[in-house]
Amino acid sequence: MSIDISQLQEIFKDLSFTTEESKFIASKLEEINLKKGDTLLHANELVYDQYYVSNGCLRTYFIDNSGKEHTLQFAINDWWISDYTAFFTTTKAIMTIECIQDAIVYKISRKSMDHLYAEIPQLETFFRKKMEKAFAAFQKRILSNLSQSAKERYTAFFSTYPNIEQSVKNYHIASYLGITTESLSRIRKEI
Amino acid sequence: MSIDISQLQEIFKDLSFTTEESKFIASKLEEINLKKGDTLLHANELVYDQYYVSNGCLRTYFIDNSGKEHTLQFAINDWWISDYTAFFTTTKAIMTIECIQDAIVYKISRKSMDHLYAEIPQLETFFRKKMEKAFAAFQKRILSNLSQSAKERYTAFFSTYPNIEQSVKNYHIASYLGITTESLSRIRKEI
Repeated sequence: MSIDISQLQEIFKDLSFTTEESKFIASKLEEINLKKGDTLLHANELVYDQYYVSNGCLRTYFIDNSGKEHTLQFAINDWWISDYTAFFTTTKAIMTIECIQDAIVYKISRKSMDHLYAEIPQLETFFRKKMEKAFAAFQKRILSNLSQSAKERYTAFFSTYPNIEQSVKNYHIASYLGITTESLSRIRKEI
Repeated sequence: MSIDISQLQEIFKDLSFTTEESKFIASKLEEINLKKGDTLLHANELVYDQYYVSNGCLRTYFIDNSGKEHTLQFAINDWWISDYTAFFTTTKAIMTIECIQDAIVYKISRKSMDHLYAEIPQLETFFRKKMEKAFAAFQKRILSNLSQSAKERYTAFFSTYPNIEQSVKNYHIASYLGITTESLSRIRKEI
């Protein structure tokens, strides 16, 4: 189902739209209710959509050839999530997105986004800026992986994702930090 | 100095502009000639600009508290480079950008970009798409750091930066891969 117009304010905080624009945008967004354990996107599926997280918690992970999971990111309230490499090129996902705490997300397709950009140019500006922030965050993450100790990255993790502790399992955090769960326990004891 | 209109084709390959638009865009871009060893951006400087690399090779690196260098990225022909976290927020650079092979770059300020977006909307689309690609590339890099061996990352490095070998020193590559130069030598012998 389409989302309610009143929910647009939550997503596009500082923007204002005409009633017609609001209806148009809302018609492109679909609300999805997820239960903990649900899979939103499976690896090897074609990726047509990205998702706005209204509440709850999701995790994007990659399974390597040896079957080991690597967590790319978590998404909490007000984050957008997808397998972006696949989303931008409409190719197959290499990642899986699972719900790790009951969530409400709003889905929008790439095709709908292109419609929105064409009809409402301020949305292109909005998403360009979102993308800039996300890019800067990834830049920071790459640097932190290269230059920080696991302990420093553990601390940074909780500033990136405040209040996430109750949603995530130890192996989620360890696979995000690129360390073993044993190393994670050691770091926790030290702190 | 402003760049010549004919150079716009190189940067904005698939776009076409009116003569007036071309003049306007060219007036916002400044050509800079760099010699190997020159520093384009110093850590702790306020960042107002990003740079299009016409030819040559640049390297962005970060120096940690212990004085160790970490290479975030290289930029060769047709790449854009800056300290993007700082550029998007007009804050101080945490990174340094040096020229590692004589280069010609075109500089543009954030303020000029905002002018261009307002006057020529197709440029906002152009840069949004660039940003999407760069974001997807960083996503891939984070996953590769988490899940691939140093040997696999070494191979991936040369597919990301073909023909870069003659421009880069061993410690540049090692600090990009997050390994020691000794490990790099070992990997090279194995391959």
